[in-house]
Amino acid sequence: MTEPGRPPTIRDVARVAEVSVATASRALGNYGRVSAETRARVLAATEQIGYRPNSLARSMITRRTNSIGVVCADIASPFFAGVVRGITDEAKRAGFDTLLVNTDEDVATEREAVALLMDKRVDGLIVSAADVREVEHLAGAQERGTPVVLIDRISSMLDADAVTVDDVAATEEAVRHLLGLGHRRIGVIAELRIEREADWANLLGPDLDRDRGELNASAARLLGYLRAHRAAGVPVDPSLVCRTGSYDVGGATEAARALLTRTNRPTALVTIDNVMTVGAFRAVRELDLDLPGDLSFVGFDNLDWTTLVRPALTLVEQPMHEIGEQAARRLVERISGDDQEPRRILLPTSFLVRGSTAAVES
Amino acid sequence: MTEPGRPPTIRDVARVAEVSVATASRALGNYGRVSAETRARVLAATEQIGYRPNSLARSMITRRTNSIGVVCADIASPFFAGVVRGITDEAKRAGFDTLLVNTDEDVATEREAVALLMDKRVDGLIVSAADVREVEHLAGAQERGTPVVLIDRISSMLDADAVTVDDVAATEEAVRHLLGLGHRRIGVIAELRIEREADWANLLGPDLDRDRGELNASAARLLGYLRAHRAAGVPVDPSLVCRTGSYDVGGATEAARALLTRTNRPTALVTIDNVMTVGAFRAVRELDLDLPGDLSFVGFDNLDWTTLVRPALTLVEQPMHEIGEQAARRLVERISGDDQEPRRILLPTSFLVRGSTAAVES
Repeated sequence: MTEPGRPPTIRDVARVAEVSVATASRALGNYGRVSAETRARVLAATEQIGYRPNSLARSMITRRTNSIGVVCADIASPFFAGVVRGITDEAKRAGFDTLLVNTDEDVATEREAVALLMDKRVDGLIVSAADVREVEHLAGAQERGTPVVLIDRISSMLDADAVTVDDVAATEEAVRHLLGLGHRRIGVIAELRIEREADWANLLGPDLDRDRGELNASAARLLGYLRAHRAAGVPVDPSLVCRTGSYDVGGATEAARALLTRTNRPTALVTIDNVMTVGAFRAVRELDLDLPGDLSFVGFDNLDWTTLVRPALTLVEQPMHEIGEQAARRLVERISGDDQEPRRILLPTSFLVRGSTAAVES
Repeated sequence: MTEPGRPPTIRDVARVAEVSVATASRALGNYGRVSAETRARVLAATEQIGYRPNSLARSMITRRTNSIGVVCADIASPFFAGVVRGITDEAKRAGFDTLLVNTDEDVATEREAVALLMDKRVDGLIVSAADVREVEHLAGAQERGTPVVLIDRISSMLDADAVTVDDVAATEEAVRHLLGLGHRRIGVIAELRIEREADWANLLGPDLDRDRGELNASAARLLGYLRAHRAAGVPVDPSLVCRTGSYDVGGATEAARALLTRTNRPTALVTIDNVMTVGAFRAVRELDLDLPGDLSFVGFDNLDWTTLVRPALTLVEQPMHEIGEQAARRLVERISGDDQEPRRILLPTSFLVRGSTAAVES
């Protein structure tokens, strides 16, 4: 009935069922008007010749591709690798594939990636927005009916679900720990891409009670640093706050080196993501500083290596896998028609006290 | 001409051009017979109403989706994260998307993943085969016209391109370094899933000159360990070769702990992937062994942390990003019609001598 070696097509189904191709399509796609008798005949024909509709054909009919697009900064970073693993696990459970694109925190690359994924007709997007103020392309995707869930960032300019950790509380707890140990000069090494200088002034100024709002993760983590100081009545020396301006190990090493070799150097150092942790720790090694004798050190992200160095690092742990899982779950709910108000899901971090922090020498 | 707010469809094009939908499809898809005059009228209609064919529709016509499927063990592992970054970079340059699936080294999961990606009509597959002897599902994909490129593994049972490092030479160089330092009892911690005990016996027995053949990466790396011993005329004590049986930090820690606490313990330890390195190094820390005084240690994969521990680790470096790039490049060549004999691309590793290895105490 069909040529040997060639998989049967809808045309073969139609021929065997003695209906038109259009009718066979309608019967298999469950759309349009088809009599029960005809549908039964078409289904019998598919069984008889072993026809399996392909997913492209199904997608043309259902307008669903059962795939989600993930737009992240860099899959080679351990944080995003952990989050994407969580996304793929949850997406797979729900029957969705995952398309992956890296942006290296570049908005133009992100715009292009989103256009491409929209062209692929993904059913939804999970995005770590490179710039939380430049999100028109994400709003555009939403307008065309493609839901968006943000991870690791929140944008006040986008009406979208977001899954992050409680960044403010995370650093607040770390700095409170150091203040409790008597430290009064606490340096911080942050990527801190703050888009407008006014925001920076506000952060250091009277604006500590603001809602986290559109602050990106690194700025929100700085807010925690500032709030902990205020709560303890300890003034902040702005010269101890290093903004490297990029997610880059080399930049963090340089910033930490400058901070740790100046006169009146800090007695403690806090980092705000795993890239800054590696960079700052490299400077500690270069300068041959003893932890915690010469310096107390707080890292970020509980990666394997942080227990392999001596002493093991005190640090903030993010639930990377869970961030991904929750983002994928929320996205699948949206794809399935959930139209409630956007939610901001703030996952708690853990603070793990190990050997790299101690009471300040008096 | 079209409803406001609704993107124009091929039906709108057909109506404006006054042709049938089938004719409009043929004209736009460049297939079948369409007169030059009709084609011009159809193209004019698309411009007039601003019609853009979507990628699903294009795919139905061209039978290409411009996407590749990547089936890897675990994206959260730094090795695969680095390789997948290389794949996505090269795929993007060539205009392909990347669909990502994890298998956790389970063949059943891999089979399911391949079926799903085939259903999605990916144009090709890059796979780190969970078991190089169970590859019928990959051969099946090839038979259906979907090229396959293996990474990190070679299968003699599959006629496919493969990109790996030169695993035998990698460990051979590491062990030669240790032998040159006077070590005679060199332990090795390997994942080493050898499918048949006979292979294991062959490896330890007369079969050292075999072609790498179907050996997986860990077995090939053990072959290098054995060859280095033979070249130096040093007998191998099989009880120093630990097979943990799984890619698992805990298992590696346990194996290393047992090896390092036995009587007549090795004076040097070699690991054969980054998971084994973390696990074995954890045991070194637990037992408070001094490197390189109590033990010389050789790691695998040049991850950031290996220079942050003291002493920094001597290790084998794999070009992770390049493995991914080369695999994607080869796959795109296949998709574009290259039908030459399958190639095995062996990339060289680097051996980095740092502080964790030294001459044996005499």
